[in-house]
Amino acid sequence: MSISKNTVTTSPGPDPQTSLQKERAKAAFDPVKMHYFLEGSKERAEIIKTMTQQMERDPIMVADASYYDLTKAQQRELTAVRINRIARYLETESFDDFQRRLSLLGVFDPQTSTRIGVNLGLFISCIRGNGTPEQLTYWALNKETVYIKGIYGCFGMTEMAHGSNVAGLETTATFDEETDEFVINTPHIGATKWWIGGAAHSATHCTVYARLKVKGEDYGVKTFVVPLRDSNHDLNPGVTVGDIGAKMGRDGIDNGWIQFSNVRIPRFFMLQKWCKVSREGEVTLPPLEQLSYSALLGGRVTMCMDSFRMCARMSTIALRYAIGRRQFKPANADEDDPTVLETQLIDYPLHQKRLFPYLAASYVLSQGALKIERTIESTLSGLDDAVEQDDYNGIMKGIDEMKSLFIDSGSMKSTCTWLAAEAIDQCRQACGGHGYSSYSGFGKAYNDWVVQCTWEGDNNVLAVSIGKPLLKHVIAVIDNDKVVKGSSAFLSDTKQFVGEGKGDKPVLTTKDDILDLKKFIRGLEVCIIRITHQSALTVKAQKGNFDFVGGDLVIISKLKCYHYLLDEFVKQTEATEHKDLQPYLLDLARLFAASLVLDRFSGTFLTYNVISSSLVGKLSSEIIPDLNAAIRPHIATLTDSFQQSDMIVNSAIANYDGNIYENYFKTVKQQNPPSITKAPYSGALEAMLNRPSLEARDRFEKTGEAAFELSKE
Amino acid sequence: MSISKNTVTTSPGPDPQTSLQKERAKAAFDPVKMHYFLEGSKERAEIIKTMTQQMERDPIMVADASYYDLTKAQQRELTAVRINRIARYLETESFDDFQRRLSLLGVFDPQTSTRIGVNLGLFISCIRGNGTPEQLTYWALNKETVYIKGIYGCFGMTEMAHGSNVAGLETTATFDEETDEFVINTPHIGATKWWIGGAAHSATHCTVYARLKVKGEDYGVKTFVVPLRDSNHDLNPGVTVGDIGAKMGRDGIDNGWIQFSNVRIPRFFMLQKWCKVSREGEVTLPPLEQLSYSALLGGRVTMCMDSFRMCARMSTIALRYAIGRRQFKPANADEDDPTVLETQLIDYPLHQKRLFPYLAASYVLSQGALKIERTIESTLSGLDDAVEQDDYNGIMKGIDEMKSLFIDSGSMKSTCTWLAAEAIDQCRQACGGHGYSSYSGFGKAYNDWVVQCTWEGDNNVLAVSIGKPLLKHVIAVIDNDKVVKGSSAFLSDTKQFVGEGKGDKPVLTTKDDILDLKKFIRGLEVCIIRITHQSALTVKAQKGNFDFVGGDLVIISKLKCYHYLLDEFVKQTEATEHKDLQPYLLDLARLFAASLVLDRFSGTFLTYNVISSSLVGKLSSEIIPDLNAAIRPHIATLTDSFQQSDMIVNSAIANYDGNIYENYFKTVKQQNPPSITKAPYSGALEAMLNRPSLEARDRFEKTGEAAFELSKE
Repeated sequence: MSISKNTVTTSPGPDPQTSLQKERAKAAFDPVKMHYFLEGSKERAEIIKTMTQQMERDPIMVADASYYDLTKAQQRELTAVRINRIARYLETESFDDFQRRLSLLGVFDPQTSTRIGVNLGLFISCIRGNGTPEQLTYWALNKETVYIKGIYGCFGMTEMAHGSNVAGLETTATFDEETDEFVINTPHIGATKWWIGGAAHSATHCTVYARLKVKGEDYGVKTFVVPLRDSNHDLNPGVTVGDIGAKMGRDGIDNGWIQFSNVRIPRFFMLQKWCKVSREGEVTLPPLEQLSYSALLGGRVTMCMDSFRMCARMSTIALRYAIGRRQFKPANADEDDPTVLETQLIDYPLHQKRLFPYLAASYVLSQGALKIERTIESTLSGLDDAVEQDDYNGIMKGIDEMKSLFIDSGSMKSTCTWLAAEAIDQCRQACGGHGYSSYSGFGKAYNDWVVQCTWEGDNNVLAVSIGKPLLKHVIAVIDNDKVVKGSSAFLSDTKQFVGEGKGDKPVLTTKDDILDLKKFIRGLEVCIIRITHQSALTVKAQKGNFDFVGGDLVIISKLKCYHYLLDEFVKQTEATEHKDLQPYLLDLARLFAASLVLDRFSGTFLTYNVISSSLVGKLSSEIIPDLNAAIRPHIATLTDSFQQSDMIVNSAIANYDGNIYENYFKTVKQQNPPSITKAPYSGALEAMLNRPSLEARDRFEKTGEAAFELSKE
Repeated sequence: MSISKNTVTTSPGPDPQTSLQKERAKAAFDPVKMHYFLEGSKERAEIIKTMTQQMERDPIMVADASYYDLTKAQQRELTAVRINRIARYLETESFDDFQRRLSLLGVFDPQTSTRIGVNLGLFISCIRGNGTPEQLTYWALNKETVYIKGIYGCFGMTEMAHGSNVAGLETTATFDEETDEFVINTPHIGATKWWIGGAAHSATHCTVYARLKVKGEDYGVKTFVVPLRDSNHDLNPGVTVGDIGAKMGRDGIDNGWIQFSNVRIPRFFMLQKWCKVSREGEVTLPPLEQLSYSALLGGRVTMCMDSFRMCARMSTIALRYAIGRRQFKPANADEDDPTVLETQLIDYPLHQKRLFPYLAASYVLSQGALKIERTIESTLSGLDDAVEQDDYNGIMKGIDEMKSLFIDSGSMKSTCTWLAAEAIDQCRQACGGHGYSSYSGFGKAYNDWVVQCTWEGDNNVLAVSIGKPLLKHVIAVIDNDKVVKGSSAFLSDTKQFVGEGKGDKPVLTTKDDILDLKKFIRGLEVCIIRITHQSALTVKAQKGNFDFVGGDLVIISKLKCYHYLLDEFVKQTEATEHKDLQPYLLDLARLFAASLVLDRFSGTFLTYNVISSSLVGKLSSEIIPDLNAAIRPHIATLTDSFQQSDMIVNSAIANYDGNIYENYFKTVKQQNPPSITKAPYSGALEAMLNRPSLEARDRFEKTGEAAFELSKE
């Protein structure tokens, strides 16, 4: 028996720490440089690190395992307290920097960042997108909303019976010419505003989506600012608000429901950049109805960055664990030889096959997320400028860019959030039982995450809606030689790949057709073209009804996103100043292509004869295993490159030091002191175990004696 | 404005109730008869209904929405109180009936059924599988464990650093010849017993898996009964126990960790049906090491039945909701015509494609679950009889059957629990935002469920381990014309389908090859044969190393399970006395085959040339949509056939009456009374919003005046 470390051990225990240290010592590249690539620039990366340090040291913002033991009520309160705290950072930094801070907070405490995001993101975006510049200035700046001060906004779009079909919302805003007011009303239970983040406890104002009714005519859904609570935080008359209650995750957010019972607001509370009602009740309609939903775009774009960071965090946990955890000795090893260690999980090809794609996805997503973030910024500010200058052509150009952004962000949001959900789930499973412990971080991550697949555009509905314009593009290319622009430009080549004899030979036939990413991307384009074209034919046959190609539209949207991601990733890899990183980056992109695209959609690629079946066979027998083997030595460094500190990762089984078991055990004991040896309800258990016999409890009424007495005639 | 029902509504609201009632009124078959089929017999079905009624009326067993608002501490206590309650039923009914009661409880309160299952299932199964009949009688009956009375058992297999590799466990049981005792010891942190259900608060005894050490020799892992707490429920000296703490789900279970510090037990506390240690320290070893893990078999079989019931419950929720929920008007409808309703979700082909397969899975699983339940009963009792009669051939036969059962239950457990996890997730997503509300039931169902994919044999490890013997079978068929028996008998035909020229023509080429299920099953067999054979070749090339075919082994295990399920389902459908049900049953099986097997594994079927690519193309364009259309009119009745009452389903959006919105709203208000208009932490929020300006809080130290003063030189 020996004294090892600080406790007595009878024989040497596992030593996961050394495994990780060894791998880290062999780093082939600098994780800090890699981090610059992942974050887009050194400057940006350094800001993020500074912010992480600030939050780690902030007594209110810092996260640890206790986070996983909070009740719903405690989560609600902590979230509110954190908003109060983070508002102070907001007062002294640029809004851009604050967005980065939120993005970071979203990795380890997504409910707090969302609860803020509803106010600063949705509420203000809605005013920015639908209100005049003066309205924006008034509500956002004069009222100090942007500093989380004065008033607090929520976003009243969804109704109980209406989610995706925004045009079908039923709350009404009836113009009262006499008093120059709008009357906001919830006509019935189905029109109750539902899921409204911040409504239950926080919000003072709400941007309400309601049907504009003027002189008996219904002008469709428009936006209005409606006060909910006065400056004393008391509910205004006519406003009924309730708490939605328990959710699968994000219990820290006070989602609420709202019913309006003829609540009156002045006419100038209507947001009127695009749509106006004059004092006399004349209505000016917007050039594009969808403009009023532009508030959702920012959220969708944010979710791409969230997906990157979440995949990175989950990969870090599962891969660090896989390096430290050992299971089963090698096939031919001497079972009794203590010097032969069990195999590290990470060295099993199946484990690599299960996990490495999500590491690859983290990398590939990073660049797509950065790109779409840049795109939305330029699109929105371009449109704002054009509106300010009353520049008609500029507005039309902005609207065109907005349409492209709807497609790109829609396919990215849906595909990336699904991928991240899957990554959390698969990473958890790869950590076995310990993945099920709350302290490993997966459970809350998953529960908090999956709503991203549903809100601000349900993933399926979104995927279908962005597939439709692609089908129309393809038809226009065939019928009118249309030249498609933007990220779907490759659809212009449709005629090269569909029609008589055009699909006879597979495009991807050799290993090199995958490993050379440009060839692969071309193959992917052909696949998208063919399935889109086939779907377009079906829609034609169904007289324009898209319902029958719903499943295909979802596949098209996913493939479109993969195309966007890989295309941008290859470009940025070529452009990076850190040339020594390129080989590692390219292998990750190849793995992404081979596993998440080709292997997973092999049925589609085969059906449309884009790939040969022998090459599909090689995917799992050769190509993917070889790529995994190439990536394997760099796993520790590739995860370190995310530069997520222990607080951000917040997993008892995946600290930076690799000391899995000691850390985990310490956390469990800290959160559940073993000195408490009996449960509060132990008395009930003891009473159960020591209860008298059934006969005794039945007062012996069913025994022989009773039978004798009671059977007497 | 009109008074409709009990509240004022300004315009008519949604009417989901009528939608469901209309569909139900058109029932083409009797859901009660269908229920008999699903449960295997009328008698069995009636017992289950009686039990449901008892629990619905039992003040402690009854479940409702409040279940979803319980904190961890409340869940723990409720679970204990329910165990106490259900123990009373146990005292007066047969153990078989009680198992059915637990199976039923597992649908709406899986944590309670598991907390019982550890004691009555794992603890007692371990004693039954490893102990002598007298040992079983002593611990189970004399000590009244089977009545959840006297003592309470837990199952001490898993260690912190050892899950799947049971042979590598490190807890030691050293025989002390002097005192005729075993000394149980936890040598280091990695050997801490971990995840032990019931250990934290309930258990008095534990069946401990520990390395038998006699006279310095290590005989591998054996089983021992070790008391943890005395009759006063105080921990015994040398036994350290702690609470594992918060989990992703099943917080009602008091999972704990245990460390033994030289705890002494008498020699006769060793379970010694197969392995004995004599007074003098002579060791008799068991005929098959795996026999000691047979305790896990019962759990695996139970999980197949759980999977059926969970798929049924989830399908019921999502499909009832899809019938009542409407979204978007038909493409060419007049948007402003109030008589044109929005389309029911269930009428969208994409929605059908997303959900109907899980309904089909519920049906198909039911029969496989019943079959494997019958198989384990006969296998275990056959083996028990043979042991009792000291019948060597009988024991060997039993061991053979046990090996088959390891394969069947392993592939079924892993595949069915994965499928159910997916069903919960997909059904939740199909209910949009409302699926994220705890009161819809999905969140807790998912969190409680997914551990089924990990415990009692991690699904991936299990799938790999059952794939290996199949590969060996195929090699033996090729090399020695082996005749394979049992559910893998079709592997005996390997030579017909592999080798030169044997795979030139696809087996499945026409629609009828799928719709005729016997043809389809043959195609499935060919696919399994070919991928198994190919994997066997790879293993040979890798000198017997299975590591490189891990991914294929998982696919083989899944396909093997689907084969088992469909084969049994078709048999039972043919055998049923309710001939009028057959067409509906067959369509469900066809959909299962077309979507969950063919469509999902189309890459595999194409790679091994089992199906033609044109037939794959038809799957999504024709075959699956047609089957969905055929099933569509019967959805309400097919879900009603599960006969799960509102308490069992426990979802605010899926009551039997179909009154989605009213029920849901009522539940939300009941659990979160809107009369509480301010949060307990509202003061903090108000203080934040009404805080003084930053300048004031900075005591104006950064203002011009200060600048002037402080800059003076």
